[in-house]
Amino acid sequence: MNIRFYNARILTMEEGAGVTEGELWVKGNRIAPAGPPDGTVWDREIDARGNLLLPGFKNAHTHSGMTFLRSYADDQPLHDWLQECFPMEAKLRPGDVYDLTRLAIMEYLTSGITANFDMYMFPDEIAKAAADCGFRTVLCGCVNNFTYDLPFMEKCWDEYNRYDELVSFILGFHAEYTCSRELLEGMAALAHKYEAPVFTHNSETRLEVDGCLERWGMTPTAFLDSLGMFDYGGGGYHGVYLNDADLEIFRRRGLWMVTNPGSNVKLASGIAPLQKMLDAGVSLALGTDGPASNNCLDFFREMFLATGLQKLQEDDASAMPADRVLEMATVGGARAMGLSDCDTLAPGNCADLVMLDLHQPNMQPLNNIAKNVVYSGSKQNVKLTMVNGRILYEDGQFHIGADPEEIYRRCNEIIDAKR
Amino acid sequence: MNIRFYNARILTMEEGAGVTEGELWVKGNRIAPAGPPDGTVWDREIDARGNLLLPGFKNAHTHSGMTFLRSYADDQPLHDWLQECFPMEAKLRPGDVYDLTRLAIMEYLTSGITANFDMYMFPDEIAKAAADCGFRTVLCGCVNNFTYDLPFMEKCWDEYNRYDELVSFILGFHAEYTCSRELLEGMAALAHKYEAPVFTHNSETRLEVDGCLERWGMTPTAFLDSLGMFDYGGGGYHGVYLNDADLEIFRRRGLWMVTNPGSNVKLASGIAPLQKMLDAGVSLALGTDGPASNNCLDFFREMFLATGLQKLQEDDASAMPADRVLEMATVGGARAMGLSDCDTLAPGNCADLVMLDLHQPNMQPLNNIAKNVVYSGSKQNVKLTMVNGRILYEDGQFHIGADPEEIYRRCNEIIDAKR
Repeated sequence: MNIRFYNARILTMEEGAGVTEGELWVKGNRIAPAGPPDGTVWDREIDARGNLLLPGFKNAHTHSGMTFLRSYADDQPLHDWLQECFPMEAKLRPGDVYDLTRLAIMEYLTSGITANFDMYMFPDEIAKAAADCGFRTVLCGCVNNFTYDLPFMEKCWDEYNRYDELVSFILGFHAEYTCSRELLEGMAALAHKYEAPVFTHNSETRLEVDGCLERWGMTPTAFLDSLGMFDYGGGGYHGVYLNDADLEIFRRRGLWMVTNPGSNVKLASGIAPLQKMLDAGVSLALGTDGPASNNCLDFFREMFLATGLQKLQEDDASAMPADRVLEMATVGGARAMGLSDCDTLAPGNCADLVMLDLHQPNMQPLNNIAKNVVYSGSKQNVKLTMVNGRILYEDGQFHIGADPEEIYRRCNEIIDAKR
Repeated sequence: MNIRFYNARILTMEEGAGVTEGELWVKGNRIAPAGPPDGTVWDREIDARGNLLLPGFKNAHTHSGMTFLRSYADDQPLHDWLQECFPMEAKLRPGDVYDLTRLAIMEYLTSGITANFDMYMFPDEIAKAAADCGFRTVLCGCVNNFTYDLPFMEKCWDEYNRYDELVSFILGFHAEYTCSRELLEGMAALAHKYEAPVFTHNSETRLEVDGCLERWGMTPTAFLDSLGMFDYGGGGYHGVYLNDADLEIFRRRGLWMVTNPGSNVKLASGIAPLQKMLDAGVSLALGTDGPASNNCLDFFREMFLATGLQKLQEDDASAMPADRVLEMATVGGARAMGLSDCDTLAPGNCADLVMLDLHQPNMQPLNNIAKNVVYSGSKQNVKLTMVNGRILYEDGQFHIGADPEEIYRRCNEIIDAKR
């Protein structure tokens, strides 16, 4: 498909570029240089009516398959919450995660998210859900003492890095506190074998950091780094309790800190010191975490929280300006996930983009469009979400090869069967 | 107009009532008891398709006319922000606030808000905007040393309490720190004369409280109460820095604390201790504050922040459960604003309601509908907003007797003329 957007406002997110007005051309699955008519036969020509095109948001940490636990065990202390969630996950049957992931993908599309970094069980079902919907997913390994093992990790590496152009796999494990030293050393060996980055939950709670200090005399970041885990990069999810020395390791190794403010708020985990990380030169990306803890998969909420909580924490309304948040949510996420050709709307990049409706009261007046997106934006503004050149969501309609009502029915059935 | 909703899920917000399934009848501007067919001629019969009807949200503190400053001066410390906003407000011309308020009303409708408590200049234009759009507004006096005076306040009381069934007026002043003692004593005398409640900004920042302590040796709450200001009730906006003695005054006088978490976050003001207030028996309502500081007028964001920030502050994920937030956002707000017949969907009450689309991925599965609304809800879920029996917003279309594009054009023109 060749699609021409005209009368558009465009924020390519290329460094230094502001909002421009004009055309954006999509040829096949790629952004093409726009110019005077060149004889291209357009499958669709879309009058953007002055609406904003920008790169799709990248949800750089989530557990999509947990949709069945949305609003299942809220308003409970973390420990009670875990006690309710874990046994439910143990009841997942083959096929469940496929449908639960499709539900999450639908929600991503309503929020302008075009790719996710998904750490969950049943990678075969996640990969199939993404490929079937036309959604881009990066699977993250989630090995731990109880689930999966290193041979399985290598199998995933081989299988999902050649599964579909929309699917890839990155090495990962659940967390320091759920893995034996032997398992972690094995993971580090894999990182060396494949010369590949490794991602994991890192310093989400104070308890986790204290436990690691007690076990190994080091913070999770320092301990994992001492095993050679990050010799080829990677990163951490949450990072609420990273200290200055941890940040220096992140900076030196070029690790990504993926912040999850909605989940950290709702589970009362704390506020990750993003402004301090920015100042320390640490690379940032943004994620929703899973729908059991967040509970929604809404990048507009996440973006507001990413800046708002910093302003509170720093006692400074100028902390974490909106343009840095927008960068994390698009460019940062793409690069963290190894999707370096999905980061901006530069010609040649994948056509993963969103059109935001500026003809809505929350986007008016047009004093500063980028700030409007971060501070006032809402799912309601998402007119169109395109992944790899295909429009998967437009004006409230899903084009994912499945009936939404059937997916809702299946997801209710899945949770009802487990009560 | 008589409108019958069928196949609905209904959350009336009456005490102890959960979500029920059935019909909701609107006759004229009121909720009518639903039952077997009674010969009523329906102007519309709406198949709710299992979607949720609940009372409209009540935005219990805002400055609607500030829409022109949305995204105008963000990411700046409070002091610099004020320095940029005040001179712009001084440039407002007759007619401006009418259009700026209509823009805000549109945004309220997209968020399921059916009434607002509006403290801003040019009350004649606010009242006309609300009446023309069919929106319910409660004007709050905003007298201070620089703007308006007590005779004007009395004129407003007389005029706007008999202006239109959708408009009312409640006594109010800007804040302790912008009013002389003489002016405050005059306000308290008006409260006594009309036996009426008084609202004001109260303890929004630490600086404000410290200033009052220095001036009067008392907190703003204690000082104002000592003048007899709250002998007939009323309340305060923000309340970030209320101490235990202040809370006791709030409880004893039956004062409303209207929290504004979005604004308090964005301006780095702090977190109001809502859970403590609940525990102390203080009545709570919710507001967005104005669009210059928030910047959006989105009750879904406000509701998430109202609970999320408490969980963080209390270091307890069970703090401020979702059902209490929903109560603040609907019942609490209505009662704070003197709209006691707009609080629930009980028969006889005004038909001020919202229909939320549950056929959306963020509302599935249906583990707990009320929690879904608070934790996962979005403007995208607002299918229909009805005020006083009239549908003002449905499926993305506004029915407010004006062209949205014309309002956008005017609002851009207003800010452009002031740069």
